[in-house]
Amino acid sequence: MRMIDLIERKKRAGQLREEEIRYFIREFTAGTIPDYQAAALLMAICFTGMTEQETAWMTDAMARSGDQVDLSSVPGVKVDKHSTGGVGDKTTLILAPLVASCGVPVAKMSGRGLGHTGGTVDKLEAIPGFRTFLDRETFLKNVREIGVCVAGQSGNLAPADKKLYALRDVTATVDSIPLIAASVMSKKIAAGAQAIVLDVKCGSGAFMKTAQDASCLAREMVKIGQACGRRMAAVITNMDAPLGRCVGNGIEVAEAIAVLKGNGPDDLRSVCLDLAAQMLSLARKGSPEECRLIAQKALESGAALEKFEQMIIAQGGDASILNRPQALYEKALEYELSAPQDGWIQRMDAESCGRASMLLGAGRETKDSVIDPAAGIFLCKKTGESVRKGELLARLYTNRPDQLEQACETLRESYVFSAEKPAKIPLIYDVILDKSSLFS
Amino acid sequence: MRMIDLIERKKRAGQLREEEIRYFIREFTAGTIPDYQAAALLMAICFTGMTEQETAWMTDAMARSGDQVDLSSVPGVKVDKHSTGGVGDKTTLILAPLVASCGVPVAKMSGRGLGHTGGTVDKLEAIPGFRTFLDRETFLKNVREIGVCVAGQSGNLAPADKKLYALRDVTATVDSIPLIAASVMSKKIAAGAQAIVLDVKCGSGAFMKTAQDASCLAREMVKIGQACGRRMAAVITNMDAPLGRCVGNGIEVAEAIAVLKGNGPDDLRSVCLDLAAQMLSLARKGSPEECRLIAQKALESGAALEKFEQMIIAQGGDASILNRPQALYEKALEYELSAPQDGWIQRMDAESCGRASMLLGAGRETKDSVIDPAAGIFLCKKTGESVRKGELLARLYTNRPDQLEQACETLRESYVFSAEKPAKIPLIYDVILDKSSLFS
Repeated sequence: MRMIDLIERKKRAGQLREEEIRYFIREFTAGTIPDYQAAALLMAICFTGMTEQETAWMTDAMARSGDQVDLSSVPGVKVDKHSTGGVGDKTTLILAPLVASCGVPVAKMSGRGLGHTGGTVDKLEAIPGFRTFLDRETFLKNVREIGVCVAGQSGNLAPADKKLYALRDVTATVDSIPLIAASVMSKKIAAGAQAIVLDVKCGSGAFMKTAQDASCLAREMVKIGQACGRRMAAVITNMDAPLGRCVGNGIEVAEAIAVLKGNGPDDLRSVCLDLAAQMLSLARKGSPEECRLIAQKALESGAALEKFEQMIIAQGGDASILNRPQALYEKALEYELSAPQDGWIQRMDAESCGRASMLLGAGRETKDSVIDPAAGIFLCKKTGESVRKGELLARLYTNRPDQLEQACETLRESYVFSAEKPAKIPLIYDVILDKSSLFS
Repeated sequence: MRMIDLIERKKRAGQLREEEIRYFIREFTAGTIPDYQAAALLMAICFTGMTEQETAWMTDAMARSGDQVDLSSVPGVKVDKHSTGGVGDKTTLILAPLVASCGVPVAKMSGRGLGHTGGTVDKLEAIPGFRTFLDRETFLKNVREIGVCVAGQSGNLAPADKKLYALRDVTATVDSIPLIAASVMSKKIAAGAQAIVLDVKCGSGAFMKTAQDASCLAREMVKIGQACGRRMAAVITNMDAPLGRCVGNGIEVAEAIAVLKGNGPDDLRSVCLDLAAQMLSLARKGSPEECRLIAQKALESGAALEKFEQMIIAQGGDASILNRPQALYEKALEYELSAPQDGWIQRMDAESCGRASMLLGAGRETKDSVIDPAAGIFLCKKTGESVRKGELLARLYTNRPDQLEQACETLRESYVFSAEKPAKIPLIYDVILDKSSLFS
């Protein structure tokens, strides 16, 4: 098998066979196929695409390129959730204990944030003492004993994807739907859960800017999951404005606690209930509608909050923050940003909010940046709300006063004002269910 | 300037600016832009193309990436010729002395052959003692004194092209018309002639399989040459069958000598006169029609042959071969291939003829293969001729009897027979003249 023949065929929009895709992934990971040939193939794929079958083979080959988590020691249907990444996305902090409190085990590996999007691991580490890096045995023991564990990715999961993504990142070959789908799904397949709910973000703060693209990506991932024997569901959620009102790390944990206490912003709670409904339904707890009610009760009864407390304690964290969530961000200096004009907030650029938060110290500009857990933003006003000139728009928390001006400007630019009340944008654009996962 | 932005723009079919193209060529040649980014850009160019202006900038940048030959010490308009490569293409051996004998200096650098196509340098080296590697001073001195020198490429001409071509070769990015045009023209521009005639081969033995593609490539190259201040003409010639009846090295020199003596096959002589007409016309010797007559006279009078003799002597070769050309291939064993059936030769696959010749020892399978100057093929029958079963089809010359069977089979497969006399295919499909070079 010669790599140049594979490139040539894909360039002419031909299809690659299973053994050819496995050869490419295996030899590229081993370093015997050079980066320049891989880059040429990736660029050809950006132009000519891959079939569902090719994408499923690639995903499977990448999932098998390293360690695969064995969750068989945990009884029950293990459900995983993946978000394609957004600004202010703290859903995992809520969903993991919420779903676990409904009797469905959650064994979730999360990532760190980079650029304008945050990562669940960084958010959890804002809780004093919370350990996100656990050995495999401790991770599984926690899931078995309390039904939930959220940790940073450990072991050598899908190294082929890691290497391929690093190459795509520097060769302008990131934005190919089959390549994105294969990348996401390879890690999820390797992570071992039998059922996976995808939260595909769509809008100004997400990688997918339109509902159509997001839906296309979601369908592709659902099909790959099915092909790999997983029960799948995908929810296309709005990311035109940050989810909830908090952007940062400690401050997002505080907002998640509010939701777990039955309060918190409507949009965030609603999206979490919708995602929880899909996760529970995939675990055969009932129809999505029935499961949404089950989840709602778990929030109202305090069961979800109690599960979060168990999870924090099991991972070495200080559970007293549940009683004093403001401790998570009050160590930072507080600044106020006021509205530059009267009007309705027509729309917000979620990516700019994320960049403003990064400037305050809550995100990473490069992989080596150090995060300030107390830094962040509280959005007093969001899309669809009206404001008077001089009224409070947002509160900024930072320990880097030198960056404040630029952060304020970036955040201010993210607001688009108008004289008219804007039309309401749906929170959920679409739900894609794999037929085999339909409650019946 | 960031390479990834250039890749991204080209991927979206955007245009690159002059400084961006110069940056790419400069930094890629210097090794600061990695191969994988260059490969991604090249593949994007294969899909979205380049404008004439982008291609001209790239050509100029590549031409300036190394040494540039200074022909100013040679008086008169120096004319160069370039063939895109074919099977049995010995035109340079005839054209260089022919054009020089008409008073137009020819300072030509040629290459070696690889794969199924031969190279002029290998052919000349079949002449005992002939030196193709000369220092720059000797090269220029020969041109000044006798009006002609054909040598192997010396110096560091267009190293950017060399590096880029090596990468294209292994990333399936060879077949892009702007990239091919820039590659060819960068070397020609660096080689210093003021006027360039391109022989763009078209057909089964050429890179361009259709007259339309060949014409497209020719027009692109003519425009690039003009943009770089050169007088240009291009002739699209048929390469559906080998040119002439000889394929090899020594045997092709023998056939060239026959043409220089006023004999030789009609197709070869005719193509040479057409190319010579364009070369002389670019040097302002008259209209192409007038120049064709001038060239014809130089063949008939023996002036061209005499010039070839001077050239052989000046480059250390044994000019006695002019009287005994068969000495160039008679050291090889001779085999006969007979026709497997009655019929007309409908068409020939020139590439297979080239591969058969390579198997006999006349070509290189890899860069390090050693060539046998005596190996080759004489085609007793070619496209458009009729044959009876058992009649002689070709004579094969080789010192590798073990390869004979495979070579015979390959050559036999190149013949396509039919019961009907095939339609005549033109030798010249098109002539493309740059307006500024029109005789006026």
